[in-house]
Amino acid sequence: MTTLLDGRIALKHGAGGRAMRTLIQDVLLAGLGSGDWIGADQMDDGAAIRVGDAWLVITTDSHVVQPAFFPGGDIGRLAVCGTVNDLAMMGATEPLGLTCAVVLEEGFARESLQRVHESMRLACLESGTTIVTGDTKVMGRGEVDGIVINTTGVALTHTLVRDAGLHAGDRIIVTGTIGDHGLAVMATRHQLGIEGTLRSDVAPLNALVRTAMAAAPGAITAMKDPTRGGLASALHEMADKGRVGVVLEENALPVSDAVRGAAELLGIDSLHVANEGKAVIGVRADAADAVLRAIRAHPLGREAAIVGTCLAERPGLLVLDTGFGRRLIAEPEGEPLPRIC
Amino acid sequence: MTTLLDGRIALKHGAGGRAMRTLIQDVLLAGLGSGDWIGADQMDDGAAIRVGDAWLVITTDSHVVQPAFFPGGDIGRLAVCGTVNDLAMMGATEPLGLTCAVVLEEGFARESLQRVHESMRLACLESGTTIVTGDTKVMGRGEVDGIVINTTGVALTHTLVRDAGLHAGDRIIVTGTIGDHGLAVMATRHQLGIEGTLRSDVAPLNALVRTAMAAAPGAITAMKDPTRGGLASALHEMADKGRVGVVLEENALPVSDAVRGAAELLGIDSLHVANEGKAVIGVRADAADAVLRAIRAHPLGREAAIVGTCLAERPGLLVLDTGFGRRLIAEPEGEPLPRIC
Repeated sequence: MTTLLDGRIALKHGAGGRAMRTLIQDVLLAGLGSGDWIGADQMDDGAAIRVGDAWLVITTDSHVVQPAFFPGGDIGRLAVCGTVNDLAMMGATEPLGLTCAVVLEEGFARESLQRVHESMRLACLESGTTIVTGDTKVMGRGEVDGIVINTTGVALTHTLVRDAGLHAGDRIIVTGTIGDHGLAVMATRHQLGIEGTLRSDVAPLNALVRTAMAAAPGAITAMKDPTRGGLASALHEMADKGRVGVVLEENALPVSDAVRGAAELLGIDSLHVANEGKAVIGVRADAADAVLRAIRAHPLGREAAIVGTCLAERPGLLVLDTGFGRRLIAEPEGEPLPRIC
Repeated sequence: MTTLLDGRIALKHGAGGRAMRTLIQDVLLAGLGSGDWIGADQMDDGAAIRVGDAWLVITTDSHVVQPAFFPGGDIGRLAVCGTVNDLAMMGATEPLGLTCAVVLEEGFARESLQRVHESMRLACLESGTTIVTGDTKVMGRGEVDGIVINTTGVALTHTLVRDAGLHAGDRIIVTGTIGDHGLAVMATRHQLGIEGTLRSDVAPLNALVRTAMAAAPGAITAMKDPTRGGLASALHEMADKGRVGVVLEENALPVSDAVRGAAELLGIDSLHVANEGKAVIGVRADAADAVLRAIRAHPLGREAAIVGTCLAERPGLLVLDTGFGRRLIAEPEGEPLPRIC
C-alpha cells in the first residue's frame, strides 16, 4: 500500500529485505506479461526461459559497492562472481557468457578501471566464462560516485533449481562461514581499524555447485546465495516461498573468529550480513551427508555445515535454536549497510 | 597509447565516438577469451553465441539519459527500445526477454519510478517482449543522479546480421529522419524554448527490421542503429569494419523541419546527433528498392530513404556528397552531448 511516507525511495528499498521485496512487487512487477518462462514474478535470483528441451537461465545485477576496492576483492570480481553465482543457484553452472556495462564518473582513474577489468578477467577465468559484450557510459563529476557495473549472465541447464523448492524434512547446508563480505566492506569503508583481520569471501561458486548437484542427482531441492540481508534474509525468503518453517542451529553456523569479533564489536548479527561466496542449499535428508561431503571436498566448501532443518509447522518462519532455547528471527527490513554489493 | 592526459576518464569516453572505441579496445577488451561466439572484440552492438543450430544474441546497455523524461519518451522507453533495437540490428527480431536493473538515488520519487515502469511495460508490449528478471539498488543522496537503468536482452536467430558486412556496391538505407532524439533531449535539458517542436524518435524497430529482412532474404548485408554519435559515427564504424568507402548523399537524408531549424540554431550537424528509433541498413543494390518499399510500408519507416552507396575506394572513409561537391566527414571524437541515452 502506498502511503505518503512511501512516496520517496529510501536506502532500504535497495537493501535486499522486506522493503525491497514490497517495492518490487508493488511497482516493478505490475502488469508484466507471462509466458513460457519462470520469471520476475517468482522473484528467484534470475529467470528461466524454455529453449527447446533446456532452460535458458538469465540473471542481472548492478554493482554499486563502496569502496570499489576492499580486502579480498573489488567491484569487478564482485560483479562477475555475483552473476555466476546467481546462475549457479538456479542449477546453471556453465555460463555461456556475461555482459558487462560500466557507468563511470568523469575523472575516474584509468588505472583503477584497468585494475577492475583485470579482476573481472581473472574471475571469468576462475569460473570458466568470459565477457561477451559490454557498454560504457560516462556521467559528469558528482553525477555518479565512481563506478557502477552491471553484469548479466546466461546459461543453459536441464536441471533447474529454484529458491522455492524446500520441503518439510529437508536439511539446510551453508557452504562456509557467514558474514565475511559485509563486515570486510564495512570495516574498510569506516576505517574501523579491524580491516586486517577481515576479508571478503567473494568467489565463484559454480564449480562447487556442480559438484554438489552431481553428488546426489535430484536431491537438491532449493538454492540461494545469502547476499544482501545475509543468511537470515535468504532463509526467510526460502521458508516463505516453500511454505516450510526453518529451524537454524546457532552452534552449527560456521563463523570465523574475525567476523565473530567484529560483529560483537559493532553490535551486528552476522546472520544479517552479506556474503558473496556462499550458498544456502536445501537437500533431501537422506542425501544431506553425501552432498555435504562433496561440498567439503571443494576448496571453497571446506567449512560447509548442515545448519538447519525444514518443518511443516510454522510455514514462512525462521527459528533460531540457540542450544538453550528457540526464538523467532524476524525478516530483516533490509541489509544494515547500504552499497554492500 | 596511454598518455598522462589519458589518465582519467572524460565524458568523451562514453560518447560513442573514437575516444570510446579506443578506451574499450585498450582497456576493456584486454585479455578476454575467445570461443564459439562472436563477441566483444568484434564490437557489434551485442554478442552472438552458438546454441545448437541457432545464434543466441545478447546485448546490454546502461541508460543515464538526463533528463529522465523528455518529449516523446523517457528513460524507461529508451531502455527497452535501445535493447530491442540492438538485438534487431543483429537480425534477432524476436526477443526472448529483457532484464532490467535499476539504480535509484535515495529520495527518487516513487511516482516517477511508476511512470518509468509503465513506459517500460508499454514498450515491451509494443515490441512483443517482457521483462523477465531484474535488480534494484539504491545509492545515497548525491551518489547517483536520479536513476540509471540497465537493460540486457536475449534472442535467438538463424540469420545473424553484423555491422561489418558492407560490400562495395551496397546501398545504404536510413529508416527515417535523423537527429530527432538528441535534439529533443538537448532542447529540453537546456530549456532552449524550442522543445515544443522537437520530439524523440525512440521506438522499437524489431518489427520493421523483420519486414525488411523478409522482403529480400539474404540481401541485407549490415545493420546498425545510429545512436550516440549519430549517423556519422555509425557509418564510420560500418565503413571501417567493412573496408568500404561510403558516399552519403546529403540531399537524400531525411531531416524534419524542426530538427533542421534546431540544428542550425545550435550550430550542430544533425549527422552527429543521436537517434533512438532509426536503423542504418546496408542492402545489395539489386534488392534495395524492394527492401525500401517494405520499410516504407511500416508505420515507423514511412520516411525511409536510400541515402548512400558503398565503394571499394577509400575504405573506412565517409564522404558527403552535397550536390555541389564531395567532402570527407571525420569520425567524431564522440557525441556532442553527454548523457543522451
